[in-house]
Amino acid sequence: MSWSPSVHRMLFFTFICLLFHHSQCYSWKTAFFKQQVDHFSFANQDTYAQRYLVNSTYWKRGGGPIFFYTGNEGDIEWFAQNTGFMWDIAEEFGAMLIFAEHRYYGQSLPYGNKSYSDAKYLGYLTSEQALADFAELLAYVKSTSSGAAESPVIAFGGSYGGMLAAWMRIKYPHIITGAIAASAPILQFTGLTPCDAFNRVVTADFSSASAECAESIRKSWKALSKILVNDEGKEWIRTHWNLCVPLNGTEDVANLKDWLTNVWTNLAMVNYPYPANFLAPLPAYPVKAVCEHLTNSSLDDHSLLDEIFKGLSVYANFTGQTQCLDVSQQADQSLGDMGWDFQACTEMVMPMCGDGINDMFEAQPWNLEKYSEKCLKKWKVNPRPLMAPLNYGGRNISSSSNIVFSNGLLDPWSTGGVTKSLSDSLIAIIIPEGAHHLDLRAADPNDPPSVIKAREIEKQFISKWISSTKRDRKEMSKSFIVG
Amino acid sequence: MSWSPSVHRMLFFTFICLLFHHSQCYSWKTAFFKQQVDHFSFANQDTYAQRYLVNSTYWKRGGGPIFFYTGNEGDIEWFAQNTGFMWDIAEEFGAMLIFAEHRYYGQSLPYGNKSYSDAKYLGYLTSEQALADFAELLAYVKSTSSGAAESPVIAFGGSYGGMLAAWMRIKYPHIITGAIAASAPILQFTGLTPCDAFNRVVTADFSSASAECAESIRKSWKALSKILVNDEGKEWIRTHWNLCVPLNGTEDVANLKDWLTNVWTNLAMVNYPYPANFLAPLPAYPVKAVCEHLTNSSLDDHSLLDEIFKGLSVYANFTGQTQCLDVSQQADQSLGDMGWDFQACTEMVMPMCGDGINDMFEAQPWNLEKYSEKCLKKWKVNPRPLMAPLNYGGRNISSSSNIVFSNGLLDPWSTGGVTKSLSDSLIAIIIPEGAHHLDLRAADPNDPPSVIKAREIEKQFISKWISSTKRDRKEMSKSFIVG
Repeated sequence: MSWSPSVHRMLFFTFICLLFHHSQCYSWKTAFFKQQVDHFSFANQDTYAQRYLVNSTYWKRGGGPIFFYTGNEGDIEWFAQNTGFMWDIAEEFGAMLIFAEHRYYGQSLPYGNKSYSDAKYLGYLTSEQALADFAELLAYVKSTSSGAAESPVIAFGGSYGGMLAAWMRIKYPHIITGAIAASAPILQFTGLTPCDAFNRVVTADFSSASAECAESIRKSWKALSKILVNDEGKEWIRTHWNLCVPLNGTEDVANLKDWLTNVWTNLAMVNYPYPANFLAPLPAYPVKAVCEHLTNSSLDDHSLLDEIFKGLSVYANFTGQTQCLDVSQQADQSLGDMGWDFQACTEMVMPMCGDGINDMFEAQPWNLEKYSEKCLKKWKVNPRPLMAPLNYGGRNISSSSNIVFSNGLLDPWSTGGVTKSLSDSLIAIIIPEGAHHLDLRAADPNDPPSVIKAREIEKQFISKWISSTKRDRKEMSKSFIVG
Repeated sequence: MSWSPSVHRMLFFTFICLLFHHSQCYSWKTAFFKQQVDHFSFANQDTYAQRYLVNSTYWKRGGGPIFFYTGNEGDIEWFAQNTGFMWDIAEEFGAMLIFAEHRYYGQSLPYGNKSYSDAKYLGYLTSEQALADFAELLAYVKSTSSGAAESPVIAFGGSYGGMLAAWMRIKYPHIITGAIAASAPILQFTGLTPCDAFNRVVTADFSSASAECAESIRKSWKALSKILVNDEGKEWIRTHWNLCVPLNGTEDVANLKDWLTNVWTNLAMVNYPYPANFLAPLPAYPVKAVCEHLTNSSLDDHSLLDEIFKGLSVYANFTGQTQCLDVSQQADQSLGDMGWDFQACTEMVMPMCGDGINDMFEAQPWNLEKYSEKCLKKWKVNPRPLMAPLNYGGRNISSSSNIVFSNGLLDPWSTGGVTKSLSDSLIAIIIPEGAHHLDLRAADPNDPPSVIKAREIEKQFISKWISSTKRDRKEMSKSFIVG
């Protein structure tokens, strides 16, 4: 990238009001920035246009901070809409808001329609390249927005975006003053966290709603296997579960089970205390709503699966608008499933397993060899499971500073999160009633006190970081002059 | 790279005695390690074999530190031979010594003979990729050498190697406990250091030997221009300077001047207090030796150039073995000039300029546009002058720690060095009588007291870093549990 890159187009001004439960209206300008496809080598000198969103309504020009959302695996507008915390506190801090789209998602496709066609195009989809995009973008904004040169930058992110926020501070402390890393499972890598922890938390969410609920799900896998063994059973499921596409062969059965696993997992993640539309439109405390249908694990297989269908419909058809059950679609289409699948096959290898006893899923060991074979077949890449820990430090991040790691205990991703403070400036916040990055969402009358308190602590640290930057602007002058 | 890479071949055991002035004997095992060509993307999944040298003679297995030389632009054996400080202190610290070769130099050629043939092969020659090589190599050594898992790692490097040592600590603090960055011009980048500073220090070295000396060199450029304007003059120079190849056209004249500029610069860099053979075999205080021939700047052009030839012969023919003057060869062939030229055309853009008044060279402005044109023509790459400062922090490295930056005031590279301490653990040492990373060389009876003191300070910090690692091995357990 040339150092004085031009903004290609200042596309349009967006004004969005969230009509679902909230009444906030968010507005931003959309812009594109010319980035190197490869920041670390010169074999490929192609460039692409990265999208980012800006709101300067409350910005105190000449020192007011920049709140920078480190976009993760999806359309950046969707994250802007779902990160109300930044909007809620912008005025108080006099902050400029920037939401930067992650390469290969949304409209930030380095090779347009070809981006996903081959590893030679897709291979530049890594977190390191994404962080370098953010660094270049910030350098550009700071050097071209009058009054921004001295603005401290606070990174915000949730989930993988939270990992990116933390890693930005770890790798670019000269650019990022501090980071709010919400539900960021930076420890969900090989050798850092037991692979069965995640599924245990998902299970706990359901069993704490009711023991029968988790037990019903645990029994449903065998019931499905038994019924789906023949065509008659497949037809029974198609009609009783209202599938869009009939099941054929064993692969379809496996896909159905994967889809179901994802539904339960997503429900645990977005077990928010009020109706929300993050991965799907859902009622308040959706796990509880699901479990209201799963009250008797002793039913016969067919009856049990009828109940399961009622439960999963809370996720798949809360609005009542769904014509049929599409098990090829896992969550909101704003999420880039393909991109994440590639990342999971390369750098974001997060071992998961379960024994079906301590969790409510089918027993599944972690098998890197098989996992790698699948990745090689699907994407023509070999996973590098230790790439992220080697680059970012794994559990050894105590040399870093100014990061708040928040974790909701309802959120299964908390198992890979930093849940103990590592120093006076690497802070862990535990939100007992929190689901996946609840604290990043807009304030809501139904928020539990714990998330209100968590946001207060986060604001205190942001203030502290901002004032310390101002204090730090002096240079020591001592040297050892010897001889 | 797979996580459990195999050492390809344990080649041979080397036993080298330095016969030139010193009597030290150094020995090492040579090994090769399989590295990814591209650590940050998956478009290119090729691997190559990186060479490294190991000596465990004094290593205290089970906790003794690893002293790790971050190889720079040349054959790693040459750096091992010229970094006596590491050998001198290995026993005292019970340290394992590792010297890691930088990709694209020595025997570590990612694409063999093709490595330099095209930007598509050569483009992976960047400092970021080199640092990732070092990180992977260290992870491998620590996980496979019994008793090394807990060994703190101290990085050592001089010049560009010193930059790499500092940057390793800055970017991989979880792997590198501390760094001795000798004569590391990490500030010799766009916007960080005035472009004329370097040539002023070179000039000061010569004028402090004698004012006539610098003045003679300052006048020599015009004398050369006048004489080389016609064939008769070119023939005069060929015979009087004993050139291997006669001069043709203006390009050859420009090359001759470039070569001469490099000779004076190199002499300032290696102005060591004892005979040494670093860039060339030289006597003690070679600048003084040169200046003994340049005592009268008022001579006529021909006589002046005769004197200049005597002076430069100190550099080009100290041994008396040189048959003729080869102005196509700038320094020891262990240095990879081609590789450095590519790096200077991509990431290592270090602006240099002079006015011919405050320095003894021909006036030469810094012109990025022309520089970039040359790079594009020669290597088919566009320089990224702000890539290194953006990645490594430029002057804003105060979030880092545990780095000693040493600078010799005789060394022109000190102008781009960190010469003021930035915190209690980012330490600047000034060695008034030091040339280019003199402190990294073996102790010598002729060492000035300042370098002896500098090495003492460096040892104190190494001890401190090693003990603090041991202290740090406890985890804080406090978290904010809210609600």
